Amino acid sequence: MSKYWSNSIKSVETYVPGEQPKGGNFIKLNTNENPYPPSPAVAEAIRCAADERLRRYPDPSCDSFREALAGYYKLDKNQIFAGNGSDEILAFAWKAFFEPGKPIMFADVTYSFYPVYCKINSIDFETVPLNDDFTMPVEPFFGSRGGVVIANPNAPTGSCMELEDIERIIKNNPENVVLIDEAYIDFGGKSALELIERHENLLVVQTLSKARSLAGLRVGFAMGDKDLITGLEKARDSFNSYTLDTLALIGAAAAFEDEEYFLGTRNSIIRTRGEFTDELRKLGFDVVESKANFVFASKKDIPALKIFKKLRENGILVRHFDKPRISNYLRITIGTPEQMKETLQVLKKLTQNHIDE
Amino acid sequence: MSKYWSNSIKSVETYVPGEQPKGGNFIKLNTNENPYPPSPAVAEAIRCAADERLRRYPDPSCDSFREALAGYYKLDKNQIFAGNGSDEILAFAWKAFFEPGKPIMFADVTYSFYPVYCKINSIDFETVPLNDDFTMPVEPFFGSRGGVVIANPNAPTGSCMELEDIERIIKNNPENVVLIDEAYIDFGGKSALELIERHENLLVVQTLSKARSLAGLRVGFAMGDKDLITGLEKARDSFNSYTLDTLALIGAAAAFEDEEYFLGTRNSIIRTRGEFTDELRKLGFDVVESKANFVFASKKDIPALKIFKKLRENGILVRHFDKPRISNYLRITIGTPEQMKETLQVLKKLTQNHIDE
Repeated sequence: MSKYWSNSIKSVETYVPGEQPKGGNFIKLNTNENPYPPSPAVAEAIRCAADERLRRYPDPSCDSFREALAGYYKLDKNQIFAGNGSDEILAFAWKAFFEPGKPIMFADVTYSFYPVYCKINSIDFETVPLNDDFTMPVEPFFGSRGGVVIANPNAPTGSCMELEDIERIIKNNPENVVLIDEAYIDFGGKSALELIERHENLLVVQTLSKARSLAGLRVGFAMGDKDLITGLEKARDSFNSYTLDTLALIGAAAAFEDEEYFLGTRNSIIRTRGEFTDELRKLGFDVVESKANFVFASKKDIPALKIFKKLRENGILVRHFDKPRISNYLRITIGTPEQMKETLQVLKKLTQNHIDE
Repeated sequence: MSKYWSNSIKSVETYVPGEQPKGGNFIKLNTNENPYPPSPAVAEAIRCAADERLRRYPDPSCDSFREALAGYYKLDKNQIFAGNGSDEILAFAWKAFFEPGKPIMFADVTYSFYPVYCKINSIDFETVPLNDDFTMPVEPFFGSRGGVVIANPNAPTGSCMELEDIERIIKNNPENVVLIDEAYIDFGGKSALELIERHENLLVVQTLSKARSLAGLRVGFAMGDKDLITGLEKARDSFNSYTLDTLALIGAAAAFEDEEYFLGTRNSIIRTRGEFTDELRKLGFDVVESKANFVFASKKDIPALKIFKKLRENGILVRHFDKPRISNYLRITIGTPEQMKETLQVLKKLTQNHIDE
């Protein structure tokens, strides 16, 4: 604490990202990174662009990347905003669309950055309890006073909503923005993108950090009515004119030109997720049905923290959240089949020893 | 205007960066970019890093880059913060150190992003008039109620303060942060860096966009007491955990390992600035004494906007600010000797024709 800090900085509890260990040879299943490298086309495009051009500022409007996305998603460029990861876009959205005194709504168990954005922007919020099976309820989100934020698939549960339920929520909040955070949508969920033409209050946020294997490049994007996009641009232009560097813009555009690679790696993860879920259940774990690149699992008779520690001792990092309702769960990122096999071996031994104890 | 925008977004007047033309073959002297490419070591480091690593999140603490800076500036790593350009660091500083109801002070003619940061964060401000010769006064900054921000060298004037005057301002604001924005310090000014050990309320902000030729990479850094650095980290971690991508971190560190290249290009710009200033004065221009990579110049008898347009017709972009006190000035970035020669030829013809008219 310093006397030079503002009151808001003194009181905020910041978001804590998953551990990025510097040494060691960990199997890293704790931050939902993709186990496969990005498309070779991305690295190639970046290598070609790392030259004299870096002396110039990037294009502040990110046009070439937005045009690539517009072509890919069949949208107009002015329905797309590009940002430094989806987190930055969320930060801009809180600033642009939510108002102190008008509480927004999100689930009680969801991405833990949402309450941080609320606190730092003095935005009140109400949490909506997930159903007992961790699926997202629908009606409780109707008629919010300030806006709605839903991660779909939800994190850290992996549970995914039907599009018709999302549309009901949008229709029942005509005066407020409904933000659908689709960081994990490419792993089997159905995007709300197709609803943006019909609903000017819908903002869909996606990222290249997960299904596109580009967490290291920091690129996300939002799609919605052009007036919402202009709102995000105004928030950005009151903060930092250029948040995407030249190499990130070029690499990100290249990622959308290699569909075959994208589908191949994405489908591998979906397949591995299915196999890993089956094996976990055989070991007696409760596993939430996941449409993301992770599973959320619990073993009633073994404390999650004990499993967490045992995995760590064996060089395997997963994520544990010490929070109400989910403190006995672990979020385990889907890696390669080999990595999941190693993980299962540790878990098998642990559950066996536990029975023997 | 959209009914979904927050009140602060509805009312903010955003910062407008200099034009980044997409076509044409302009001599671009409008955004203070460096005319020389970055060190070849930077491009090489980036090309080597554009690989499988991109699937992983960057190091959120930016340790390797901060360690490179710590070695270069003889500081401790925890006295350094790394951000997405100095603009992002300024945005975090406004959030971390300034408070609604406690007005901050900055010059009436200075970087035009400062009032935008104030507006979006509901921070009041008082402007201190520059002296008639555009130098920065000292005593008027004593005893601010909320903090002081000084660009040194100042933009768009290029004028630079003595370090002892800066220290007097710091000493006379013991309860508030004094932020020295040193985006242009490497072109001949003396950095306030040496004062940070003595003054825990001093924050020095620098960038790689100007003297390091890396505007396209979006990297800036701040130096100060470790408690101020922690304040910036808290602002960042309430916004976006990773704002510097893997390639930017690696390229930025490499830029500080090639001192010879840095000094060579920097000295060329200083030399060209001197020659260009002399020639402008021969043509009858008033030129503010500059320690930056630009000059601020005016010709009493020719409207700046007319000169601006004539230069543009000839493929030369410079910057004009339609603002009180400076509307008859142009800010001209220092390019290569050849580019400045071309610029002078157009200006010579223009001043000659003006006399003939």
